[in-house]
Amino acid sequence: MLNASQYIKEHIRTVENWPQQGVMFRDITPLLQDPKTFRVLIDLFVHRYMDAKLDMVAGLDARGFIIGSVLAYELNLGFVPIRKKGKLPFTTLSEQYELEYGSATVELHADACKPGDRVVLIDDLIATGGTMMAGKKLLERLGAEVVEGAVIVDLPELGGSKLLKSSGLQLYTVCDFDGH
Amino acid sequence: MLNASQYIKEHIRTVENWPQQGVMFRDITPLLQDPKTFRVLIDLFVHRYMDAKLDMVAGLDARGFIIGSVLAYELNLGFVPIRKKGKLPFTTLSEQYELEYGSATVELHADACKPGDRVVLIDDLIATGGTMMAGKKLLERLGAEVVEGAVIVDLPELGGSKLLKSSGLQLYTVCDFDGH
Repeated sequence: MLNASQYIKEHIRTVENWPQQGVMFRDITPLLQDPKTFRVLIDLFVHRYMDAKLDMVAGLDARGFIIGSVLAYELNLGFVPIRKKGKLPFTTLSEQYELEYGSATVELHADACKPGDRVVLIDDLIATGGTMMAGKKLLERLGAEVVEGAVIVDLPELGGSKLLKSSGLQLYTVCDFDGH
Repeated sequence: MLNASQYIKEHIRTVENWPQQGVMFRDITPLLQDPKTFRVLIDLFVHRYMDAKLDMVAGLDARGFIIGSVLAYELNLGFVPIRKKGKLPFTTLSEQYELEYGSATVELHADACKPGDRVVLIDDLIATGGTMMAGKKLLERLGAEVVEGAVIVDLPELGGSKLLKSSGLQLYTVCDFDGH
């Protein structure tokens, strides 16, 4: 009998020392390119949010688009991309966040959702949690309610999921890995 | 009675002078965030490829992920991302292509598909055609057959679709716009 979460975890590839020495990169591309694992993965998200009375799915640039767009389609919802700086052409809101070295900025179109919209926020992975926190702030600045943040992989040792939960964000994570 | 292609075209927003003076940017985000237009859009692609006996869907970073991943799921196929340089952690092939100023590179994992795989290559828009041409070359270097390139928007005046067709790539474009 299939344990979906374990099955997903087993199909994630670890690439050592990428993008830099000492990092164990968790690569989801083997999951995506196999039709069976891709289906099981997406269905975990679809089943979780079937009855969540969502108004919208938001996805973080760029791997969050892969899960987020299918989830939106399956639930008959719209899909909102939250993008890296300089990619969205219309009026945008932006949020800057800190990285290990320097900072990054994500943006959201000002007309992407309405006050009171119930939104789930999708990415592939939580490390330090900076991107997801910034995405949550953007959606909340438009008055949306971020019902949950959802990812495939959590790296709990990096503290991101703890930080996000302590900010009041409910999280769904399919699996987690030690280390970073 | 709905003409799907016209319906899609009417929901694309034109942002003038973005990202630079003189450019009319065709913004697909209104299409994506409305559940009805998003569904009609995706279904155009799903219906087109239902009987195409595909083995894989490839999507170009990053807007190509949005259509490509849903198409893959709906057809019970795997999804392969073709990414901007430096984003894929495993062994990659890369193709450089020329932009108006400078050049860009896209990459594909070496194990993303097998010789003989029938693949459709998805992006949001064809302008000069450089990205799609590079994506096609990457897939063909792995021995895959690129059955068709498919996008939402073609900008025929920029010559990309003509160039791609003359290279032997069959194209599917939902709608086109004058100018660039």
